[in-house]
Amino acid sequence: MDATQNYIQENKQRFLDELFELLRIPSISADPVYVQDMLDTAQKTADFLKEAGADNVEICETAGYPVVYGEKIIDENLPTILVYGHYDVQPPDPLDLWESGPFEPVIKKTEIHPEGAIFARGSADDKGQFFMHLKAFEAMMSAGELPCNVKFMIEGEEEVGSENLGDFVKNNREKLANDVILISDTSLVAKDVPSLCTGLRGLSYVEVKVKGPDLDLHSGLYGGAVPNPINVLCDMIGQLHDENGKITVKGFYDDVIELSDEERAEMAKVPFDLENYKKSIGIKDIQGEEGYVTMERNSIRPTLDVNGIWGGYTGEGAKTVIPSYAEAKISMRLVPGQDPEKITQLFCEHFESIAPDSVEVTTKPHHGGKGYVLPIDSKGYLAAKKAMTHTFGKEAIPFRSGGSIPIVALFEEELGSKSVLLGFGLDSDVIHSPNENFGVFNFYKGIETIPFFFKYFAEA
Amino acid sequence: MDATQNYIQENKQRFLDELFELLRIPSISADPVYVQDMLDTAQKTADFLKEAGADNVEICETAGYPVVYGEKIIDENLPTILVYGHYDVQPPDPLDLWESGPFEPVIKKTEIHPEGAIFARGSADDKGQFFMHLKAFEAMMSAGELPCNVKFMIEGEEEVGSENLGDFVKNNREKLANDVILISDTSLVAKDVPSLCTGLRGLSYVEVKVKGPDLDLHSGLYGGAVPNPINVLCDMIGQLHDENGKITVKGFYDDVIELSDEERAEMAKVPFDLENYKKSIGIKDIQGEEGYVTMERNSIRPTLDVNGIWGGYTGEGAKTVIPSYAEAKISMRLVPGQDPEKITQLFCEHFESIAPDSVEVTTKPHHGGKGYVLPIDSKGYLAAKKAMTHTFGKEAIPFRSGGSIPIVALFEEELGSKSVLLGFGLDSDVIHSPNENFGVFNFYKGIETIPFFFKYFAEA
Repeated sequence: MDATQNYIQENKQRFLDELFELLRIPSISADPVYVQDMLDTAQKTADFLKEAGADNVEICETAGYPVVYGEKIIDENLPTILVYGHYDVQPPDPLDLWESGPFEPVIKKTEIHPEGAIFARGSADDKGQFFMHLKAFEAMMSAGELPCNVKFMIEGEEEVGSENLGDFVKNNREKLANDVILISDTSLVAKDVPSLCTGLRGLSYVEVKVKGPDLDLHSGLYGGAVPNPINVLCDMIGQLHDENGKITVKGFYDDVIELSDEERAEMAKVPFDLENYKKSIGIKDIQGEEGYVTMERNSIRPTLDVNGIWGGYTGEGAKTVIPSYAEAKISMRLVPGQDPEKITQLFCEHFESIAPDSVEVTTKPHHGGKGYVLPIDSKGYLAAKKAMTHTFGKEAIPFRSGGSIPIVALFEEELGSKSVLLGFGLDSDVIHSPNENFGVFNFYKGIETIPFFFKYFAEA
Repeated sequence: MDATQNYIQENKQRFLDELFELLRIPSISADPVYVQDMLDTAQKTADFLKEAGADNVEICETAGYPVVYGEKIIDENLPTILVYGHYDVQPPDPLDLWESGPFEPVIKKTEIHPEGAIFARGSADDKGQFFMHLKAFEAMMSAGELPCNVKFMIEGEEEVGSENLGDFVKNNREKLANDVILISDTSLVAKDVPSLCTGLRGLSYVEVKVKGPDLDLHSGLYGGAVPNPINVLCDMIGQLHDENGKITVKGFYDDVIELSDEERAEMAKVPFDLENYKKSIGIKDIQGEEGYVTMERNSIRPTLDVNGIWGGYTGEGAKTVIPSYAEAKISMRLVPGQDPEKITQLFCEHFESIAPDSVEVTTKPHHGGKGYVLPIDSKGYLAAKKAMTHTFGKEAIPFRSGGSIPIVALFEEELGSKSVLLGFGLDSDVIHSPNENFGVFNFYKGIETIPFFFKYFAEA
């Protein structure tokens, strides 16, 4: 891989400049205002793929945003790696908390990244990371060192649940056939700890609404006599956890696959500093399920979080209304064993059952996804471990993530192959938050490491 | 009062046209955008007062919006009635629920008002009602039948807590000296039930904020391990009532003056139809404090309502954040005996005490006000009862209201006189809500009744 690595070193600045082109387009899938930007981003991704040397580059239509496809088949007897990524990004709000524009990429030095970090929405999630694969591929192609077949599938709806990816995969099984799927959309444990995510949480997402009176009421004339939908919604949400931090939805934990004591002991080896953790996000104290430590609570245990809540008068000053209704967005992170559709149904049934008779409750389920585990003796894991160990100069370790990439379970079901999560982000990238950033070190390390994954996977 | 009543009958249309002039100005005290409209409304009120025949009409400056003053002193040996009203109105939002513009007054026939109702923000609260007094005064002046002295004090901050009225009253005790205060800002029990409000609830108002992390976090990476301010806020709010609908704030009920069984039996005589009540506001069922009926719960019992709540992502679609903070606006209606400042302090202490250590809670108290009672053997009550009985042709009855007019207690403390609540509104006026309206019948009935109050009060 020497020629590949040399090529990478010689083209670093251009790689960054090209990534900036991608980052400038506000490809916000959640908001239909950005349809044209989404299509422009798909086009640009396809162009970069073609320039890198891919064949059969297509912008494949779906019922939603298109999937960008490309491939290089060098020998049908060689293994095939399918690279997945997504070109859409999270909405940037709240805008006023960004120090530079979310779509005006800029390199800034930080404490964690003295050599600089790329500040922009999508720099880590996922444009910076999927682009590493395009550049690694370009390098291997230019060097004539591509060791096996590769296919690229870059979708545009990951941030809104990849609703149409299932159909795309089902309708293109032959085209997408592969021996392993490679995904860079996760983080390292720390910048100097080569680490591979071997587990993801699943997701259930429900919007709920509690309605009281048909119209807003004067809280003097009616207060005390009628159900106040905000008070009722709060009370119901408060009931969703018990005093030990356990979720009270009936049947919620039934299918949870518990980790053995040995596995928990392995996990505990991953470096973790509680004081730094609290300080990095500015919380007074941690809080969670009794009987589990922080790194278990945020990865191998299921959760329930209210992501948004609103009702009544929220403007300046005082307005004493009893509002007609109150609403909330609630998501649950799931662990292997838990089926998202079953959990969503259990949640809705439970939530409706704890509502007082005086109000009307409606629940609206959204997209979900299963949890996932990659065994550490699998071919894909071993190749990734070897690659990272090589480029970092120390042994890579496995760890579990709290995040969800719902399509990973979909891929296993529909294409029959495992996904290797070869991520180079960091928690401090603050994806989904303002001032998202991706270390320049991490970007280049990814580009350098990927060709070694190809090499070791092809050799195995 | 014959000449007065004839004058009223002959000038009905003009009275309505003039009221419409007042209603067209968006005098929204809660929003500083409307400063000029507020001052214009004060000026127009002053002009009307002058045209009606008042002397010494002034627009009196305060640290906030001005108070409009005017008087007619005919004989220092006669009693003096001080008329209080307010020219500011509630914000009209949500705008999209208004069927006609909130500041485009129009008469529409309704089921309750086949002869028409005036639809506009402020038509019942309070422009339509205080304007009845200006027209009744004008009629008595034109007819030469004014039986006693009268003073007018129309302020501009009632909807935002009358912050500066206290100082105004204290600085103008001599000017405002009176034997009784007359206020029209409440309702009748029903359109055909002459009734006088003899009790008001007090008010405490607090804004609360629960803060978790310093910034919004990804709910996959952090969910389960950190306090979610929305979940915490909901849980704390849920704890504010027990399963019997009683407020759990420590010491909350200590000073409540309970009604005797006899008083409760008297209250129960006021006509009330539960099915109609539920239907009129579209609730599935009532809900409230165990051991009390609806008309007690909304008038003689204290309450706690969340008027607004917000936190996290509330836009279209899904965004899985753990927000940095969540906020709520909470108000408590109080009953005689309860001191608003003490209750506010008890609430803040209690709320802070039930917060988990993992979050930061801040409480911001707002304006408050005491509850109030008018004894039914008082001179003012008896004159009002006689006047209403005369114009309605059936005996007027006393009742307690759930609403608050904080300055009524202030008046008693600073000016040493009782306030008579001679209101002509109806609950169906839906004050504070979209499509606020005031019956044309009610508007004229008020103008006709007020001169009889003056007559009977002067004679007593």
